[in-house]
Amino acid sequence: MTEATQAAAAGSDSLQDLRERLRHFAAERDWNQFHGPKNLAMSVAIEAAEIMEHFQWLTPAQSLELGHAARREVAHEIADVLLYLVRLADVLDIDLLSAAHEKIALNAQKYPVPRGL
Amino acid sequence: MTEATQAAAAGSDSLQDLRERLRHFAAERDWNQFHGPKNLAMSVAIEAAEIMEHFQWLTPAQSLELGHAARREVAHEIADVLLYLVRLADVLDIDLLSAAHEKIALNAQKYPVPRGL
Amino acid sequence: MTEATQAAAAGSDSLQDLRERLRHFAAERDWNQFHGPKNLAMSVAIEAAEIMEHFQWLTPAQSLELGHAARREVAHEIADVLLYLVRLADVLDIDLLSAAHEKIALNAQKYPVPRGL
Amino acid sequence: MTEATQAAAAGSDSLQDLRERLRHFAAERDWNQFHGPKNLAMSVAIEAAEIMEHFQWLTPAQSLELGHAARREVAHEIADVLLYLVRLADVLDIDLLSAAHEKIALNAQKYPVPRGL
Repeated sequence: MTEATQAAAAGSDSLQDLRERLRHFAAERDWNQFHGPKNLAMSVAIEAAEIMEHFQWLTPAQSLELGHAARREVAHEIADVLLYLVRLADVLDIDLLSAAHEKIALNAQKYPVPRGL
Repeated sequence: MTEATQAAAAGSDSLQDLRERLRHFAAERDWNQFHGPKNLAMSVAIEAAEIMEHFQWLTPAQSLELGHAARREVAHEIADVLLYLVRLADVLDIDLLSAAHEKIALNAQKYPVPRGL
Repeated sequence: MTEATQAAAAGSDSLQDLRERLRHFAAERDWNQFHGPKNLAMSVAIEAAEIMEHFQWLTPAQSLELGHAARREVAHEIADVLLYLVRLADVLDIDLLSAAHEKIALNAQKYPVPRGL
Repeated sequence: MTEATQAAAAGSDSLQDLRERLRHFAAERDWNQFHGPKNLAMSVAIEAAEIMEHFQWLTPAQSLELGHAARREVAHEIADVLLYLVRLADVLDIDLLSAAHEKIALNAQKYPVPRGL
């Protein structure tokens, strides 16, 4: 592998690796039949709600001071959202990172940086 | 930059770039005051619901045949979930990709690949 | 109709009226084809997220001081959740009020009232 | 109490009874401190996602054929959404049924009944 290929492989990257790993994971378990966009969209929302469960009754201040165990659980819920999101983008053939950068550009237009005197 | 550093920088990657860009975006607009974990968890869930809106009344088959305009809108909703998710992981100091790979490993134990004869 | 029956009919009620009105509303528009439990469950979640949108960036204190216009919008989002919830219970032949009272009884066992000395 | 008042009281009702019971339930457990609109809006969304969990991987047809146990679980999740919704409307001083009927009237304008020849 050349340096360029290697960097490209690494850089094209991590989300691509994750996508490949999830494709393989689903295929091995014969789960593609369940992974249509409608179901995956529900999954993203369900896992998003599981993140919220951890913060539901906390004050804003408490939400910044999770204990070690809670933080690890939250990390796993956040991971679940990412996994389903990557899967959803994959079955829709959407490039997640391009879409993200495109959206930031749109948001920058929508919410211009306030300039004072 | 050595080859290793380069690959590491590239590989550590794109999600890191996104994280940095979003940090900058929030700081420029003085939005950090709003970006506590509790609020960001709500944001992830709200944007997840906006993805679902596109599939709500579609049959599973129709959800696989989005037109060009709908697909672009869905890409932006998916992007919104990713942006808030990256932000949430950032304020909680969670490494999104490590958490994702850790969760896949846990899922692999929970759902072993069925082995036939 | 006796007084007792009348009171019972009225009391069993208002949610029943709503259910009937929504049945009629859906039938007139030929929407029953869309109102399967899976779709309606998504609708409830989507409308629930729309309630949250109003509180997403507010402090807990601010969330108690909505202006007149915001309060009216929130009332309509809350109404949307109720409408889909009534519809969902209806297509599943679930008695919403009985289920609610049954659930409160279960919650009372799960969270007993703390008794001091 | 006249027959009419009685019927009206009963009819104005069942949701009112539920509201009163929940007020009492929260007060007894000293939970009012947690029941601000922001937290309750999160709760409604979290419970809505729990309804969805039951339908996530089902086909539309399967979602109509829940077994007895699943149906009972779904009934309790639906109940949970209603309980938090009633609580949320209560702390915001919103009349749930009036809001619902007002919203149906608005929806009727937005989606007129199609009239053929």
